[in-house]
Amino acid sequence: MNNFDFCSPTYFVFGKERETEAGRYVKKYGGNKVLIHYGGGSVVKSGLLDRVKKSLTEEGLSFIELGGVMPNPRSGLVYTGVELCKKEGVDFILAVGGGSVIDSAKAIAMGAVYDGDFWDFFSVKRPEKALPVGTILTIAAAGSEGSGDAVITKEEGMLKRGSGGDCLRPRFSILNPALTQSLPAYQTACGATDIMAHVFERYFTNTKEVEITDRLCEAVLLTMLKEVPRVIEDPNNYEARANIMWAGMVAHNNLVGVGREQDWNSHGLEHELSALYDCAHGAGLAVIFPAWMTYVLDHDVLRFAQMATRVFGCEMNFQNPKATALEGIWRLKKFFTSIGMPINFKELGAREEDIDYMVEKFGIGIGKTGGFVALDREAVTAIYHLAL
Amino acid sequence: MNNFDFCSPTYFVFGKERETEAGRYVKKYGGNKVLIHYGGGSVVKSGLLDRVKKSLTEEGLSFIELGGVMPNPRSGLVYTGVELCKKEGVDFILAVGGGSVIDSAKAIAMGAVYDGDFWDFFSVKRPEKALPVGTILTIAAAGSEGSGDAVITKEEGMLKRGSGGDCLRPRFSILNPALTQSLPAYQTACGATDIMAHVFERYFTNTKEVEITDRLCEAVLLTMLKEVPRVIEDPNNYEARANIMWAGMVAHNNLVGVGREQDWNSHGLEHELSALYDCAHGAGLAVIFPAWMTYVLDHDVLRFAQMATRVFGCEMNFQNPKATALEGIWRLKKFFTSIGMPINFKELGAREEDIDYMVEKFGIGIGKTGGFVALDREAVTAIYHLAL
Repeated sequence: MNNFDFCSPTYFVFGKERETEAGRYVKKYGGNKVLIHYGGGSVVKSGLLDRVKKSLTEEGLSFIELGGVMPNPRSGLVYTGVELCKKEGVDFILAVGGGSVIDSAKAIAMGAVYDGDFWDFFSVKRPEKALPVGTILTIAAAGSEGSGDAVITKEEGMLKRGSGGDCLRPRFSILNPALTQSLPAYQTACGATDIMAHVFERYFTNTKEVEITDRLCEAVLLTMLKEVPRVIEDPNNYEARANIMWAGMVAHNNLVGVGREQDWNSHGLEHELSALYDCAHGAGLAVIFPAWMTYVLDHDVLRFAQMATRVFGCEMNFQNPKATALEGIWRLKKFFTSIGMPINFKELGAREEDIDYMVEKFGIGIGKTGGFVALDREAVTAIYHLAL
Repeated sequence: MNNFDFCSPTYFVFGKERETEAGRYVKKYGGNKVLIHYGGGSVVKSGLLDRVKKSLTEEGLSFIELGGVMPNPRSGLVYTGVELCKKEGVDFILAVGGGSVIDSAKAIAMGAVYDGDFWDFFSVKRPEKALPVGTILTIAAAGSEGSGDAVITKEEGMLKRGSGGDCLRPRFSILNPALTQSLPAYQTACGATDIMAHVFERYFTNTKEVEITDRLCEAVLLTMLKEVPRVIEDPNNYEARANIMWAGMVAHNNLVGVGREQDWNSHGLEHELSALYDCAHGAGLAVIFPAWMTYVLDHDVLRFAQMATRVFGCEMNFQNPKATALEGIWRLKKFFTSIGMPINFKELGAREEDIDYMVEKFGIGIGKTGGFVALDREAVTAIYHLAL
């Protein structure tokens, strides 16, 4: 196990109707003038935004609003938000939505206390300070409600890049699983895939002797295999929604990834897909991961066999561990298919003729990621082809 | 899943030689005048205390010392510490040791900012504030390095009682697994048993639909089954020590227990053993748990069968689930025996003729605990007898 630091100070407020406590927690964490940040009309139509505003008003807090966050959130709205915060003297940002909204809020939070261009923190700088952010989560997926990470897409060149630092961890996050019950099956499955992907990126490591984090990773994956089909079957299943929602936080606050090298190449490979086709991040991951796994399998067959047996219930083939490993990947694909996810370019609507372009763009990221297997141009090309 | 709040804000500093950073973290978390609190001579003899003092001095911090914490830490030394803190204007307590030292430090931290008797927080009050505490952990066991709990024994009547509140969570905890390599096998096994016990207290619940926390509990237990025999075999196995040390934190910062009723009767039953015989807490737990499990088994046979199959690798007996459940308990006993733990009164040195006295004393706690099965006098008596 490698040396590590870990701090996940976010105050989690979990359960039914807990969004009505938003004002109390904004106040507790020092907010006076709040920017409420959200996406499309669903938080308005569902009445959630009104409940949140009521809660803030009851605590005597003033607020302004900025809606319009898109999936794969864009830098344009971040610039608008930064300007707004500076002009209005905002001291707290409350994100009401999913990972896109939260990431956009985090980017605004960095930019609001910085004299330069916020994009610096997605290209050349690590953030050291930011306005405090609180979240009310409406989809179990990105894990941004408990993480110090954010991903933003810059419109010029559709560059999708990440930033990270402990100052980005939310002060509080309110997780009411009932808020996710209205999500369509497809979005639910995309979110679930993202959660599993956050575990895979950490699970495949060259660090030896990391049994506790291996087992914690497996715990999240096993939970997903049980609970996700239940919400696809019945979107109103509160209990399954609750298990998935908490699993989504555990998958990405880095508790399951400490002390070990992580990979994160598949996220990079997927980012090119969602940047080009504007597909859901989770759908892109369902396409990339089985292909990536197949490509890197020989690097550590027994690690893949471990996942196959411990997570997917495969019987270990002691004569041929690789057969077990491949069976695990096959079962993962079947699982993705069963919850309505695409598992190849064709199903996603991606095109073989775009591969060279994506490889070219991915090149920028090479060297920054790839803790399990470093990928060169040839490897990236091969993985995209395996995903056809 | 029940509604819950969860916040584990402790900054964890994990790995080799990291105790040399103690001064930096005390400073970061606002300490100027530090009370270094520790137990017996081992932290002195090993040179650990000197390294810590050097680190504080290098940061320009002043400090006083208070050693002498005993296992099952006593109120007497807490009173001394409280007085010392008040007199010397201590603003930070640095605990160097195991759970006993940390719990003693937490009790002093509460008392130092309170006008009344600190014991109030172990009897009639919940703590709302305390001096900040940092820890340098020397044994993987109590999980106090990441928890908001403390247990103190009052000499009069040898009352062992707990207190809890988020203000007791350490600001930072330094976990260097190498510091635990000098621990004798017996103490190591006692600590491991305590870690497993913290999971059992949470695992046996009447709350339905808690798959994620079930799986996380099982992750910790599976890790212990793999790693503990390796350190008993080779105390210098750093990697196994590291996995156990992090598992010990995960087992008790309550991540694996949120959203579910917990039990904690076995800890109460054990407290009477260690109060009366001054035995190691872990040893007492190894005696109590199999007896408690056997007694309450019929309350939820399938939950015990789940543990037996998922954790102890038993094959599910679909014709007779209770046989599977019992096999799990039997394997747990075999495991405890294999790592040198006592599993009955005789091996612990406890006496049948003391049972009535212990039942009498335990009576005080009834009603406060017992989330899985509420125990009456008859039940407590029966469990102690099952442990003979």
